[in-house]
Amino acid sequence: MIPIRILGLDPGLRRTGWGVISAEGSRLTHIAHGVIAPKETLAFAERLLVLLEGIEAVIAAHAPHEAAVEETFMNNNAASALKLGHARAMALVAPARAGLVVAEYAATVVKKSVVGTGGADKTQVGFMIRRLLPTAGETTADAADALAIAIAHAHARTSRTLAQRTGGRAA
Amino acid sequence: MIPIRILGLDPGLRRTGWGVISAEGSRLTHIAHGVIAPKETLAFAERLLVLLEGIEAVIAAHAPHEAAVEETFMNNNAASALKLGHARAMALVAPARAGLVVAEYAATVVKKSVVGTGGADKTQVGFMIRRLLPTAGETTADAADALAIAIAHAHARTSRTLAQRTGGRAA
Repeated sequence: MIPIRILGLDPGLRRTGWGVISAEGSRLTHIAHGVIAPKETLAFAERLLVLLEGIEAVIAAHAPHEAAVEETFMNNNAASALKLGHARAMALVAPARAGLVVAEYAATVVKKSVVGTGGADKTQVGFMIRRLLPTAGETTADAADALAIAIAHAHARTSRTLAQRTGGRAA
Repeated sequence: MIPIRILGLDPGLRRTGWGVISAEGSRLTHIAHGVIAPKETLAFAERLLVLLEGIEAVIAAHAPHEAAVEETFMNNNAASALKLGHARAMALVAPARAGLVVAEYAATVVKKSVVGTGGADKTQVGFMIRRLLPTAGETTADAADALAIAIAHAHARTSRTLAQRTGGRAA
């Protein structure tokens, strides 16, 4: 089986977490992770540009084959949702321009895939990241979330591949 | 006075209107306008990419010096606001990457600047666009709005220049 590199992105205007893993069937390996944090003193359009160029630099450095982005938590505040939409767009358009398919997963799906329950908290996600990717070392919450998204995508694509191979549906 | 080319953008996921004008003091000239409408059958990230590359193509073709984007009408639906934020981000980041300062104006400010009242409707905006930019010819509502945003920016920057020159505040 050919190893696939997956870029996971946890978008945010103040901090966008990213993580790259390699998946060879069910075997996962940590490649790199980090956080892009534009200076808050920059103009809004410039902050978006820092996010876009940061994600492009990650793609250039680690050459992922596929990307996965967290579906944003939808609160009821339209003003915050609008702002977050701007930041999240950078996480979608940078991989798309690099020719990567961009998958999207709800936070509950990511947590269920990594921890086993959709209601897991950040501590549990961090714990499982250290278990599943022991060479990742210390991660901030944003980077851990990004790695979790990459892992969720690795699980989802393995299920799909198995389903295709057996002609049936994966669990 | 050196003519300044201004790119106005009316962002939307289905249709992003754009218009380029030249401003020489208070003298305005129509340069070009159009609409970028990504196919709705494309994946979400691909639609954003079509908007981004469309705006980049407009900037490459018409070499504006400054850009102005409409501040989005904020309805109470967080889901629509999130989606619109993604599209609007393309209108901010493309000019920023090209090194243009990006100004933002509320729709009411744009209408007041072009028609004289913040509550003007699309018909009145279209009428004033034909009066102010007689060589523009037929425009769709999205392109007319984009030209209106460019005009509002031309007015605002002229006021600022006058204020700087007289050491006072412009009306």
